[in-house]
Parts: sequence; C-alpha cells; structure tokens
Amino acid sequence: MIRILFFLFFSVALCAQPNPDDEKQLKSFFDTSLLAGNAYQWLDYLTNRIGSRLSGSLGAERAVAWTKAELDSLGLDSVYLQAVKVPKWVRGSKEFALIETAPGITFNVPITALGGSVATPSVGLKAPVVEVQGIEELKALGSEQIEGKIVFFNRPMQADLISTFQAYSGCVDQRYSGAKEASEYGAVGVIVRSMNLRLDDLPHTGAMSYGDQAVSKRIPAAAISTNAAEKLSSLLKLEPALKFLFRQQCKTYPDVWSHNVIGEITGSEFPNDIIVVGGHLDSWDLGDGAHDDGAGVVQSMEVLRLFKATGYKPKRTIRVVLFMNEENGLRGGNAYANKALLAGERHIFALESDAGGFTPRGFSFTCSNEEFNQVLSWKPLFKPYLIHYFEKGGSGADVRPLKNKYNVLAGLRPDSQRYFDHHHAENDTFNAVNKRELELGAATMTSLIYLYDKYGLAVPSDNSFAR
Amino acid sequence: MIRILFFLFFSVALCAQPNPDDEKQLKSFFDTSLLAGNAYQWLDYLTNRIGSRLSGSLGAERAVAWTKAELDSLGLDSVYLQAVKVPKWVRGSKEFALIETAPGITFNVPITALGGSVATPSVGLKAPVVEVQGIEELKALGSEQIEGKIVFFNRPMQADLISTFQAYSGCVDQRYSGAKEASEYGAVGVIVRSMNLRLDDLPHTGAMSYGDQAVSKRIPAAAISTNAAEKLSSLLKLEPALKFLFRQQCKTYPDVWSHNVIGEITGSEFPNDIIVVGGHLDSWDLGDGAHDDGAGVVQSMEVLRLFKATGYKPKRTIRVVLFMNEENGLRGGNAYANKALLAGERHIFALESDAGGFTPRGFSFTCSNEEFNQVLSWKPLFKPYLIHYFEKGGSGADVRPLKNKYNVLAGLRPDSQRYFDHHHAENDTFNAVNKRELELGAATMTSLIYLYDKYGLAVPSDNSFAR
Repeated sequence: MIRILFFLFFSVALCAQPNPDDEKQLKSFFDTSLLAGNAYQWLDYLTNRIGSRLSGSLGAERAVAWTKAELDSLGLDSVYLQAVKVPKWVRGSKEFALIETAPGITFNVPITALGGSVATPSVGLKAPVVEVQGIEELKALGSEQIEGKIVFFNRPMQADLISTFQAYSGCVDQRYSGAKEASEYGAVGVIVRSMNLRLDDLPHTGAMSYGDQAVSKRIPAAAISTNAAEKLSSLLKLEPALKFLFRQQCKTYPDVWSHNVIGEITGSEFPNDIIVVGGHLDSWDLGDGAHDDGAGVVQSMEVLRLFKATGYKPKRTIRVVLFMNEENGLRGGNAYANKALLAGERHIFALESDAGGFTPRGFSFTCSNEEFNQVLSWKPLFKPYLIHYFEKGGSGADVRPLKNKYNVLAGLRPDSQRYFDHHHAENDTFNAVNKRELELGAATMTSLIYLYDKYGLAVPSDNSFAR
Repeated sequence: MIRILFFLFFSVALCAQPNPDDEKQLKSFFDTSLLAGNAYQWLDYLTNRIGSRLSGSLGAERAVAWTKAELDSLGLDSVYLQAVKVPKWVRGSKEFALIETAPGITFNVPITALGGSVATPSVGLKAPVVEVQGIEELKALGSEQIEGKIVFFNRPMQADLISTFQAYSGCVDQRYSGAKEASEYGAVGVIVRSMNLRLDDLPHTGAMSYGDQAVSKRIPAAAISTNAAEKLSSLLKLEPALKFLFRQQCKTYPDVWSHNVIGEITGSEFPNDIIVVGGHLDSWDLGDGAHDDGAGVVQSMEVLRLFKATGYKPKRTIRVVLFMNEENGLRGGNAYANKALLAGERHIFALESDAGGFTPRGFSFTCSNEEFNQVLSWKPLFKPYLIHYFEKGGSGADVRPLKNKYNVLAGLRPDSQRYFDHHHAENDTFNAVNKRELELGAATMTSLIYLYDKYGLAVPSDNSFAR
C-alpha cells in the first residue's frame, strides 16, 4: 500500500500541470539559444583559435584571458580572476612505441604518455610484456611474474553498460593507479588500453598518479590505442617472449599560478544566495578539448548571456565559474570551494557541464529526497525539449567540493554514446561538436538555473556555507 | 476530476512494475546487440562494399542480392524476393553552377540535381534569379516577376523546432513541388536551398515531382548548399540583375524491375498473425546511404538475428521487409501492402526504422487510444536503456500503406539533431554512424517486436487485412 501511495504521489508529481509562465520562459531560452545563440561561435574560437589548454600551458593562460574578456563584454555585474596554483606537466616530443616479436621484426603502435607520468630513458625502455586484466590480477601474479617487465593493462570498457561513464568508471583504475601498483612488484613500465569503447588507432591520455611513491620507484606509463591493444594481446598469445619498446620525454615542472575565471549577475532580491554554473577551462593537450570541456565552458557562459538576451533578471546571484585544472589536480574546484567557505558564502545550487556537448538528456542530482521531489515537479516543463533524465547521482568534479547538507548539486547529462570516442584524444575537436546539440544543452542548463533562481531550495536554510 | 482520474490512470500505467521475464528478455537483446551484434558489420558491407543504391541502379540490385544471401544464412523459415517495378532516374555527369554578378565576374557554387528533374540544355541554363521564401510568395509575385527567370526557393528549415523532422516537413514542399509551381508562372529553372539546418558546402538531393505536368512545361530543378544559398541571397541584394548558370544531365528512363527482400520466422502459435519490421534498401546516389536507410535495413535484419541468437522463438510470424524505392516512388511499400491485401494476410503490427542510426529515444505510434495504453504499459521496461519517447504520431513511409483500423504501426525515433546534416548528401556515409548507437537502436526495435509477439494487440481482431 505504501508502495502504491508512493507511486501515486510520485506520478501526480510527474503529471502536474506546468506553470505557463515557466513554460514561456523556457521556450524563450530554447528559442534564443537555437536562433541566436553564441555558444558555438565561442567554442569555435576557444578550440580553433586557442586550442588545447593543459594546466600551466600558454593555451590555458590564453583561455583565461580570452574568456575573461568575453565575460567582460556581457555587461555582468562583476568579472574577476581567482588565483590557483596548478601542476605543470609537459608531454615533450611525440611518443614512440613498437612491438618486437623477434630481433628485427617490429610493429609500430600508437601510444601517448599518461598525464603525470615520468619519462622513459632517452633511448626508450624495452622489456618483455605481461598482460593483465586489472590490478587484482597484477597482485595475484606477484613479483615473480612482474619483475623487470612492462605491465600491459588490457581490461576493456564494458560494452553492455548503457552509460558509457559507468563503463569508464569500471576501467579507469588501471590508468590512474596501474603504474604505482605495478612498480611495487618490480615492473619497469606500464601500457594501458585506451579508455575507448571503439576500436580505432587513437591513444587516449588522462591522469595517472604515483601518490606518495618514492621518486626512484616511479615507472613510465602510456596509453595504447584500442586497435593496438588488441594486436599486442594477440601477438602475445603467439609469442609470449615478445618485447615492447617505448619512448616518451614528458616532465613535471614546479607548480605555476593560473586562474579560475568568474563572472556574475548579482541577485535583485537575494544577492547572498549564490547559484553556480560552470565547466572546466583546462583540457588535455591532445585535440583541442572541444567536448572536454570546451562545451561546458561555453554553455556555462551562455547561461548568463541567455539571461541577458531574454531580459531575465535573476533574484539570486548567478555566477559562472570556469574552473582551472580539473583534468590533473582539481585545484580550481578545490580552491573555489575553500574560498567560498572562508568567505561564508551560501551556495544553494551548483550545476556543472562536463560530459560533452552532445544532445542533452537531463541531469543527475546530488541532493536529499525533499529536494529531489522539487526537481521532479519541474520535469514536465522539459518534456517539449525531450529532456527526460532526472535521476539522483553525481554532479561534476569541480562543483563537488561545494556540497553541504543543505544545497543541491547537479550535472548535465548529455547522450553519452559517442563521448569516449573522443575523450582525451586528438579527435576531441570542434568538428565533433554539433551546433544544435551544444545549443540545446545551453538552454537546458539555463532552464534549470532559472527554476532554482525563481523557486530556491525546497528546504531553505539560513546557514552559511558549511560542510 | 476526470482530468485527475485520467492522470492517475495514466500515471499508474506508467509506474506499473515491469514483468521480470520481460526485463530479462530485453536485457538479453541489449546485451547481445552490444556485445555480439552484427548490424555494424552488415552496414560496413552495405555502405562501403556496395555503396549507394538508387532504385534501378546496379547498386540497388547488388544490395538485393546481398541482403537476400545474408538473410538466407540466418536459418529463417523463408526468404524470398517480391518483384516491384521502380522508376529509373540517372544523374549523369556532375552538375555545374555559377553566379555571374557581371560579365566575367563569377562564383562557382555547389549544386545537385533533384531526383526526378529534367536536364538543362547541354550548354547549361543561364537566367536572372528571383528569390522567394516559398510557393505562396511565388504565386503572389505572379508571371510578370517570374517569367524567364530561375526561381530560388530559400526558406530555411526552422531552427527553433526541437524535432528536425518537423523543420523538414515545414520546408520540403519547395523542393518537391517548387519546379512544377514555378513553371506555371513561366520560370525556366528552379534552385532550392538544401534541406539542412547546418551552414555547409554540401548540396542535398531528394525527390521532386512534376505531377501530370506536360513534358514541354517541365523545368530543371537543383538543390544548392546552404552556404551557397546564403551567398546567392546576399549577392542578389547587392546586384539584383545577377545571373545564375547551371548545367545538369540527369535523365529518366523507363521503369525497371527490382525487388523487396523478405525473410521470416514462422510463428509457433499464431503463424497467421504477421509482425513486420523493415527499412528501405534503396538510397539516394550521393554518399552511401548509411543513415538513410542503411541503418534501418541492418537494424531490421538484426531483429531476426537477435531472436535467433538469444534463442527466442516467436509465437507470431516475424517478417523483415527491406523495401525498394522509398526515396523516389514508394513502389516497394505500396506493392507489399497490395499483395498482403490480396493474400488476405493479417498484419497486426509493423515497425519501420527510417530516421537514421542515431541513439534511439523511443517510438511514435499510429494507433487507437486503447492500443496506445498497452504501449505505455510497456514503457517502464525501456527505462534502463534511456528509451523514453512513446508518443502517438507517424510510423514510416513504407509501412504506412499497411494501416487498417485494427493494427498498430510504429516508427523508431532516434535522436534527430544530426540527421539532416547528412540526409541525401555525400556525407551520409558509414563513418557518420556510431556502432553503439546503431546497436542500441536494433535492440530497442527487437524489444518492441518481442512485446507485440508475446502480448499481441490489446484489441485483437479476427479480421483479415482490410482497410
């Protein structure tokens, strides 16, 4: 019976008649985004004129200066930079790798150094290979089988999972921690199958970490394309004694200063209620970071521009934050949250777009049941735009540090099927982003920010920011 | 109150607990499609090895022979060809066009002859241009303004519509009937803005018709790329007396014989209840027809293969029909329905996939309210696969002739945002189709066919096929 009542309650909430003013306002955001949006032009500049934006690079600094100037031009109430110290890792010259099945019999394969990895010796590193499906298998094999070898982590992303992000989560430990773990058993290097559901020739980089491992124990780690991973695996079955050679010249420099870029419209009624919308300004150095996360950056800027363009004056303070260093350190997200805490700012809601510029399907929310019921009551407003996914779940890495027991965090959830075809690879480029899909995402985000601005939290609190 | 009751009824239907056997069966279809599907490999062959398949072409005949052979290999109960007479229109050598703003000052622009158009004189056709936003404006201008000119239909697809198919419907009359109408006012040729929401350099072909217009009155018609349409429009403002020259050598030949390709699994309990799943085998001659409708062809074949691969034995007869000549005549769809009528076959359900191989979002159904309620009761089964769109509406051009007052027709509804970037243009190619998206569509179709096989119509009828 309780179950039935729950269904009825839930269902009535789902089927509530939308407020016509809200319907009109959402239509205005979508129409303006699709007919006179600016997100796509911004993305064109950010990706094609500035390009990749790895923390500590000139590209990242140009992106800081340019996005600040663009926000300045919107007539916001305040635009400023927030200093953040970030890691500086540099890839160096292009990596090289080959499989040697017998002396003089070699196959070149595409690899890319993982972000944060040490270099190989300048002549390269050559060793026999042991293939494992993950860290557990590595541990089971133990030092005897691993000593002196290159460990090849080859667990593929699970193709039967509908959410490709879930498939990513199930594999990324071998990329992030594989080298640290393998070194403990005497491995000399690590090759990781690219986090890509597709079979192709592009290696995908991404963060790895040695944790607090002694510098002397750190071994080089690289990603190999999925096609080459399949080839290496099948050659290993034919010739278990084959050797792998790779060379990479990457290097970590001392931290440098960079910035989060922030712009805001001050709330007309509740200026101390802060609503954040953001993405991360940094990207990996392959491709031009169009989906990850150029899309989230320009969509977040577009939220404030759409408010201006449609004449909507928010009651609460709407702040766009372009976070620096999500990819290899999260320094921007952490610095922003720490400063907000110190300043006693009250963040009621934060939304991140960091899942690509594909057709938006909805949002996932980190919040209480009461807050989630409010969100569900808004769902019918989104139906004309085919936005249907409203689920509890994660938000985004940059806004996550803002979570407290009162506020709500959310992440935009675009269609995920193509995302890992491009993620952290040289084909994460402007031409892989569809203008309409990007614009629909921006309007979807603007609509949710508008609803939080208008209605506030379901369970309001006077508490300042506190965790 | 009635409204509230309706909502409650509707909501309870939506929130009904799915049958665990059905949940398991759907999961088996999705898992098999994503882990061991064959649709993508089939599409690779159909597009890259066979290529475009315009009715009456060698490509179309190769596609008939190859798909029949592939169906033969599946161990179905019956595979056969159904003869259909189809139009044969041939493009001839590549079209040529230029804008001449003054003698000797010219700009080349990309055009493509519309399917069914007559040729220009072999030296080309050169005339002043009058731009109109549609057929109504043409009529308002009248013979005085139109006589001796090339009519340039430049109404763009409406970008603020969320469904790009709706935007297409709002424009396609100028392509289909523009030449016939313009000729009545003395126009000598027609240029139509490509049906594309994106600004790019690719002209998009598609069907046009002269109806029963006298052969002597038929004027040539071509599509121009969206970028070139914008250029022509702005040059016309600067130089209204400019001339447009185009040359095309297309020709209509007498009808030829071709075939629908049909394969079926005979139902174990109700063999006379027929369920059809299909797409169209023909394509336009630009590109390789990967989305339109190679995707629908291989997905429809995959439905029967997935039944076999998962060991599901249907109670009703499941028939895949690969229709010939959807693009420029619909001869296959009409012939199939006429033969079914003559044979007194009872088609209870027919599903078409002809909206591209993109991420599936759901279906639209042509049916009564009672039948639609049954469909809605199945909706929760699809939630794990993010399939959410269940609406009344159209099905597909090929299955539409099967409609009677008892049966249900449906069309797969994939994400539509990118579809018209590729539709009828040379970039409708294999590499624009994502493997997972295609496979998700095949599993979604298989799931719905399974449910109709298991449960039959909500309002069963003993009537034979009758309209």
